Amino acid sequence: MRGGNLTREHLIRVSAELFSEKGFRAATMEDIAQALGIRKGSIYYYIKSKEELLREISLRTMNMLLEAAQNIVSSISHPTKRIEALIDSHVRLLCENLDLFTCTLRELTPTNAGPFWGEIVGLRDRYESLIRWAIRDAKEKRVLKEIDEKMAGLALLGMMNWMTRWYSPNGEKSSRELAQIWTDIFFNGTGKREVDNGV
Amino acid sequence: MRGGNLTREHLIRVSAELFSEKGFRAATMEDIAQALGIRKGSIYYYIKSKEELLREISLRTMNMLLEAAQNIVSSISHPTKRIEALIDSHVRLLCENLDLFTCTLRELTPTNAGPFWGEIVGLRDRYESLIRWAIRDAKEKRVLKEIDEKMAGLALLGMMNWMTRWYSPNGEKSSRELAQIWTDIFFNGTGKREVDNGV
Repeated sequence: MRGGNLTREHLIRVSAELFSEKGFRAATMEDIAQALGIRKGSIYYYIKSKEELLREISLRTMNMLLEAAQNIVSSISHPTKRIEALIDSHVRLLCENLDLFTCTLRELTPTNAGPFWGEIVGLRDRYESLIRWAIRDAKEKRVLKEIDEKMAGLALLGMMNWMTRWYSPNGEKSSRELAQIWTDIFFNGTGKREVDNGV
Repeated sequence: MRGGNLTREHLIRVSAELFSEKGFRAATMEDIAQALGIRKGSIYYYIKSKEELLREISLRTMNMLLEAAQNIVSSISHPTKRIEALIDSHVRLLCENLDLFTCTLRELTPTNAGPFWGEIVGLRDRYESLIRWAIRDAKEKRVLKEIDEKMAGLALLGMMNWMTRWYSPNGEKSSRELAQIWTDIFFNGTGKREVDNGV
């Protein structure tokens, strides 16, 4: 692809792939230009700095999650189905945009982000509030136990976000299957209950 | 602290703190020397390269986890108590060595590790096998459901390891309380059961 046809989308995707592979600090503007098939000098026509790329990658990741969660929250009123849909959406977006997520979840640190750290953290907080609200609502409707919703939310985010460290699109489980496993563990746990033994 | 009194332990701790804060690539040997109160030139007396520091940090983290897990596995035969102890040990070690864990779990990538990647991955695999073995054993003894032990292990590691992104020693929950919450979610889930309603 030559400069003239370079879309913002392509630039973001290629950069996220490089940042995921090499790390944000280790990847250079030259690496990005090379991967895009343009001259190093030309890349500044599209983007001012590596930091600007990291900002766009993180914004895209957070906005994807947030928009999907807002749609779910406004359209599903059944408290367990709503949480199921939130898990399914997070896992699917992560699997379909693995480099964007890996880059945002691993490379976005206060040092790397600099001035835009607060902006991304704001979006993350809004997203996490929606997750917590869904858990609280399910608790109030007595389908969940009296669990601390902040901790339950962090457990869920941990199971899902840790996938950036091991998920492979060539693995044995689809994103749908993985979402179902997390949903089952989150709601039912792994322990056998007396009723399971027919007692 | 001046060069003469510099212990390996102190060097590792200070480097892990810097790598966690700034990132492995962004932190320089000069930053490390400065934090130790020695001249930049003197640091090479103690360590050959930043990579060697990352290797020692990761080895230390993995060996801590592995030794604790081996002790638990060889001393606790009750399948649920064994898993509880594994969770408690992982969470406690992570909370007490937050910089070592953050550095290992976030900064250790194939690019940053280079030649010693395989060595650390080998230790990680041994640790994860112990976790999986404990889950499989609990399944065979019918205290856990017929869950995929690899997935259950990854869910558990996700909940625990994600703590490197949000845990603070000044937070409202102790490492013991956090371990109990993860144990409860892992075994029992968050959902209310009919028996909970007295049905």
